[in-house]
Amino acid sequence: MSSIATNAREASAGANDSLKSEFVAFKTNRIIEVASNLFYQRGYSSCTLDLVADNLGVTKPFLYSYFKNKEAILAAICEVGISESLAVLEATLADEHKTHRALLTEVVRQVGRIVIERQEYVVVYQREMKHLSATDHNRILRMRASFDHQIAELIREGVEAGEFREDTDSFVAVWIGGLISWIPTWYSPGGQRSSGEVIDQLVTAALRLAGAE
Amino acid sequence: MSSIATNAREASAGANDSLKSEFVAFKTNRIIEVASNLFYQRGYSSCTLDLVADNLGVTKPFLYSYFKNKEAILAAICEVGISESLAVLEATLADEHKTHRALLTEVVRQVGRIVIERQEYVVVYQREMKHLSATDHNRILRMRASFDHQIAELIREGVEAGEFREDTDSFVAVWIGGLISWIPTWYSPGGQRSSGEVIDQLVTAALRLAGAE
Repeated sequence: MSSIATNAREASAGANDSLKSEFVAFKTNRIIEVASNLFYQRGYSSCTLDLVADNLGVTKPFLYSYFKNKEAILAAICEVGISESLAVLEATLADEHKTHRALLTEVVRQVGRIVIERQEYVVVYQREMKHLSATDHNRILRMRASFDHQIAELIREGVEAGEFREDTDSFVAVWIGGLISWIPTWYSPGGQRSSGEVIDQLVTAALRLAGAE
Repeated sequence: MSSIATNAREASAGANDSLKSEFVAFKTNRIIEVASNLFYQRGYSSCTLDLVADNLGVTKPFLYSYFKNKEAILAAICEVGISESLAVLEATLADEHKTHRALLTEVVRQVGRIVIERQEYVVVYQREMKHLSATDHNRILRMRASFDHQIAELIREGVEAGEFREDTDSFVAVWIGGLISWIPTWYSPGGQRSSGEVIDQLVTAALRLAGAE
């Protein structure tokens, strides 16, 4: 949850405020970490807030001081993967000195790392999104659309710059997003392929889809 | 559920038996169709067999004469996509006169059609697989592994035949499987792209991944 913690840190001004924010971020992160693991193992519908509180060794009122209800915890879990991916995408695209090929490589490599690191969160999102409120669901969809749109722009510009094959439809961004999103459902840490190998293959696959090889 | 119905038909010998089998297949298919829609809308854990029976206008004992429990209905739903895909794959690969490129194109096109047609079933599988018994879960995993393995073989042979780029790792089969499996989570019937366009793009993407263009 490093990015959430960082955001919380940066948002506060004074040293005491900063420390307090860090505590809040730490507790928030622990709640969503433990809740995510329970939702992942047992399914969202089968988990009560009592169960989440028990597993954290806290009371239910303690949870309510951080999240207004169980759905708010789910929303926080579902947002981690896409919000970290968007942050990485925007930071990477800010480097104007790189080729489109290098930018695509860098984004895909970093986002691949995020979905592997956040595997449980991403799977919980994919399985349980129907339990999100319309507001949370739409906010996350807008973030995903923004990600796809920026990758599509990068590909369109790369085609114009002559770096990617000219018959490449920028909609291929959605297929690249699919490759990335699919990893958490089949990748198994400690399995036959290391995360490094999986990410190398992902980059190769994304470059082929973009017509960059 | 055409393939299930066909299997049921072929399994029976006499004309009366055949008719009876057709009735059984018809009812089985209706049960999993209605149950799939309920699981899709409300989640597996939130649906009772009473709810399924109510929606079919039948009694719970009627359901028990076709499925031993709710998990058996889930298993039947989860198996549709992969069993139809395997059938299509094996029928296609039986044509020895085609090039590897033509075989890959044909399989991907047909399996793409299946996952779009069976969208709800595939999404229910992806979301609810954790509720499958170990036996059902492993049987379906073996079917998926067989599908990936046969696509990997096709690609390996295509590389040897000089049809696909020689630096293509046959593990790319898993990424092609990912492209296909991802469609049901983002494709929306009646949305911006027709199913025909999506399938054309899927074929282009799979050929690029295989280094066949």
